[in-house]
Amino acid sequence: MSTTAERERVPKQDRSRATRQRLLEAAVSCLAEHGWAGSTVAVVAERAGVSRGAAQHHFPTREDLFTAAVEYVAEERSTALRALFPQGAVEDRRAIVAALVDLYTGPLFRAALHLWVAACDEEQLRPRVTELEARVGRETHRIAIDLLGADESLPGVRETVQGLLDMARGLGLANLLTDDTARRERVVAQWAGLLEQALG
Amino acid sequence: MSTTAERERVPKQDRSRATRQRLLEAAVSCLAEHGWAGSTVAVVAERAGVSRGAAQHHFPTREDLFTAAVEYVAEERSTALRALFPQGAVEDRRAIVAALVDLYTGPLFRAALHLWVAACDEEQLRPRVTELEARVGRETHRIAIDLLGADESLPGVRETVQGLLDMARGLGLANLLTDDTARRERVVAQWAGLLEQALG
Repeated sequence: MSTTAERERVPKQDRSRATRQRLLEAAVSCLAEHGWAGSTVAVVAERAGVSRGAAQHHFPTREDLFTAAVEYVAEERSTALRALFPQGAVEDRRAIVAALVDLYTGPLFRAALHLWVAACDEEQLRPRVTELEARVGRETHRIAIDLLGADESLPGVRETVQGLLDMARGLGLANLLTDDTARRERVVAQWAGLLEQALG
Repeated sequence: MSTTAERERVPKQDRSRATRQRLLEAAVSCLAEHGWAGSTVAVVAERAGVSRGAAQHHFPTREDLFTAAVEYVAEERSTALRALFPQGAVEDRRAIVAALVDLYTGPLFRAALHLWVAACDEEQLRPRVTELEARVGRETHRIAIDLLGADESLPGVRETVQGLLDMARGLGLANLLTDDTARRERVVAQWAGLLEQALG
């Protein structure tokens, strides 16, 4: 049943998916570097080496492109994080805490932050970013629980892990204008120890 | 030695100081509500009921006005926080942690966040905001150490308090687009307990 048309469709789908990925990755870099004001579909299309028409075929609006981009890159990072610790809680908890904190100190966090702050003032963006933040937040919480081997049925464990992710977000913010790596490593080492005691 | 000129100078200085304060408070509200793009000296002058000329006499540039505003309001809040717990560490540590976290969930944090994010992309703003952030951060750390009665000469205590303030900053970010109060209160209760154990 493999017709010529079918054989040709597969590479075309592959090309389309590759174009989409290039656009999403370019959108996150663009947002991280230039903020919301400097991020348009046209700028991203040029950066990704894709025609403006093709970009608009994939993402009809600016809001579509940038929310999809932050979600895509967040998913990619989550998958990579899980792959990094296939044994989960059996592994070094301090290394797991450090890796969770790393989610918040790179270009993805910077891009997401620009999107959040823009969403404060842009009515079209706000509900989409609110929903995106909730989805990504739930997924990150689930990964943290799994990797840390935390038992959420015990009182306080859920809030302990939530607080850790809040701290990670705050550490990301502290890294926005200056390189906060040295201080951050000391804070992570200390709180990984406190977390170890709290989770038992 | 009290001449007429001297008697008249005092009320004039008072008026000038009151005008300055009105401008600074209006600038923080404006930044919190409209972000950096919507915040200019002219908009703030109108909001404060001050002529544009008078506003520019106090603050020659937009950068002057908004960095001064965030610093002024941060100082006001620090003073108010110290006044709230005159006994420091003798008082309920959970209440102190909650009050420290409150520093990051109101209009001041929202204004500061808009300024930080704008400073990523604006070369004129960046060094001033970096310096401001360091100054305000040091002062908040000092207050936290004093109020919590933490002994920084003990290993790990400095990092424990730093991590707490990072968590507070992350909780502020989580409150940006939605009202996160209920979740935040549970996290604060849990982490105040962990902090109590850590500080002894």
